Amino acid sequence: MEKLEKLILVTNDDSVNAKGIQSLVEIASKHGRVVVVAPDKPQSGMGHAITLNDPIRLTPVSVFGDIEAYASSGTPVDCVKLAIYEVLKRKPDLVLSGINHGENSSTNVLYSGTMSAAIEGAMEGLPSIGFSLSNFSPEADFKQYESFISKIINNALLNDFPKFTCLNVNIPNIPGSQIAGISVCTQAHAFWADRFDKREDQFGRPYYWLTGEFGEVNPRVDSDLYALNNGYISIVPTHFDLTNYAVLDQIKNWKL
Amino acid sequence: MEKLEKLILVTNDDSVNAKGIQSLVEIASKHGRVVVVAPDKPQSGMGHAITLNDPIRLTPVSVFGDIEAYASSGTPVDCVKLAIYEVLKRKPDLVLSGINHGENSSTNVLYSGTMSAAIEGAMEGLPSIGFSLSNFSPEADFKQYESFISKIINNALLNDFPKFTCLNVNIPNIPGSQIAGISVCTQAHAFWADRFDKREDQFGRPYYWLTGEFGEVNPRVDSDLYALNNGYISIVPTHFDLTNYAVLDQIKNWKL
Repeated sequence: MEKLEKLILVTNDDSVNAKGIQSLVEIASKHGRVVVVAPDKPQSGMGHAITLNDPIRLTPVSVFGDIEAYASSGTPVDCVKLAIYEVLKRKPDLVLSGINHGENSSTNVLYSGTMSAAIEGAMEGLPSIGFSLSNFSPEADFKQYESFISKIINNALLNDFPKFTCLNVNIPNIPGSQIAGISVCTQAHAFWADRFDKREDQFGRPYYWLTGEFGEVNPRVDSDLYALNNGYISIVPTHFDLTNYAVLDQIKNWKL
Repeated sequence: MEKLEKLILVTNDDSVNAKGIQSLVEIASKHGRVVVVAPDKPQSGMGHAITLNDPIRLTPVSVFGDIEAYASSGTPVDCVKLAIYEVLKRKPDLVLSGINHGENSSTNVLYSGTMSAAIEGAMEGLPSIGFSLSNFSPEADFKQYESFISKIINNALLNDFPKFTCLNVNIPNIPGSQIAGISVCTQAHAFWADRFDKREDQFGRPYYWLTGEFGEVNPRVDSDLYALNNGYISIVPTHFDLTNYAVLDQIKNWKL
C-alpha cells in the first residue's frame, strides 16, 4: 500500500511576499505536499483577530513556483480557517506558521499573528508549529537554521503530537553554526513597558506610534527567554486554556 | 485623612458609541472616578491585536457627559496602553472592559477584543474585568444586570485581586430577575466549526464571509458554558501564561 504523502499547510503574518515564509515553504516541501494560504499584506501584531465585519478575499498566487498558494485579505487566523474549510480537501497533517521576522517568545505569543495562526491550528485539533527568528530584517538568512527546523518538523510528524497544543519555536539571532541546541521550556513572564511617540500631523493634530521596552518580570531558568539568551532554540508547548486554575478557590471565596 | 477615590478605566471593543459601554460607565461611576478610552469604531473579533504599522489617533469625546472620555483609532489593547501611558496620571485601580454585545465565554476569549483589553490590564499588573452579555442586539438592556455587575466590581475593589489575572464575566441572555447567581468556573473547551459563505461580487470575483457553529468539545460541569446554560453569570479567572505544562515532559522526550 502506498504511503499517503503528508499534507502541510503553511501560513504566516508577514504576508506571502516575506522571505521567512519562502524559506519555510522550501524546508517544509522536503517533508510533504505544501499548500500555502497566507495574508496578502503584513499583519504583524494582529494577535488572534478574525474578520467579522468585512468580506474576505482569497486569490491564487504563483510566488512559490509550482506550490499551490493563495493570498488572503484576512488575518493569519482567517487564513487557517479558509485553508481548512475552503481550500484543502482534507485536514492537513501539520500546520506551520512563519518563519516570523522577529521574536515571538514569552508574552509576545499573545500579540503575534504568527503564533495565533498556530494556536488556531491547535484549536482545530491539528499538530501546529509557529517559527520565529529574533531578527526583524526583511533580508534575514533563515536557511542557515534549516537543519533545526527540519528536525522539529520531523519530530512533529513522527511522534504523537499532543492534542489541542501547538509549539512556539523561537530561534536566537546568532549564526546557525553557533546554535547550542534545542530547549523545551516554558513561556517567560515578560512585559512591554510601553511608551508612545507623540507627534503632530501637518494640521497640528496629535498622533501616536506605539513603542516600548521589553523585559522579563520574573526571570526563570526554565523560560524561553533564558534559553534564547543562552544560544538555544526555544520550544514552548502552547495551549488555549487561559483559566488561571491556581486562583479559582481564591475567587470562589469572594462574597458573590 | 481623605480616602483616595478609586480610578477606574473603562474600555470595550464595540466603540464609544455602543450601549454596553454606556451602561458600564454608569454603573462604574458609582464605584469611583471613571475615565474612558475606547475605540472610535467597532472592533469585535480583534483579539489581542496592536497597531504597529499605523499611527494611532486619540480624540476627546463628550458622549459620556461629564466623564472624561477619549475615542481612539486603535484596537482595544491599544486603548488600554494609551490610557495607562498617555491619558491617566496614575495607574488605575481597576480596568473594566465591555459590556460586550455578545458572549465571550470559553475559547471566544481568544478572539474577543473585550477580553483582550482585560488581559492587557492583567499584563500591566492591574485588577481587570471583562463583561459580556449573550445578546448581540445593539439595543440590549444591560442595566437589568446592574446589581450583579456592581457586586463583582465591589468584590474586585475590596478583595485581594489575584495578580496578573483578569476576570472573564459572561451574563446569560435571560431577564435579570431570573439570574440564578454567580458561578466561578473554568474556560470551557468549545470550538467554532467554521463555514464560509462564498459569494460573488459585481465582477464575478469570489469573496467570503466567516460564519460557523459553536459547540462544546468536552462538556464539563465546572465550565463557563455549563454555568451560562443553567442561568448563572460565569466568572473565569483568566491569565496569559499559555504554556501547556501537562505536555512539557512529553516534548522533552522527543529526539531534538
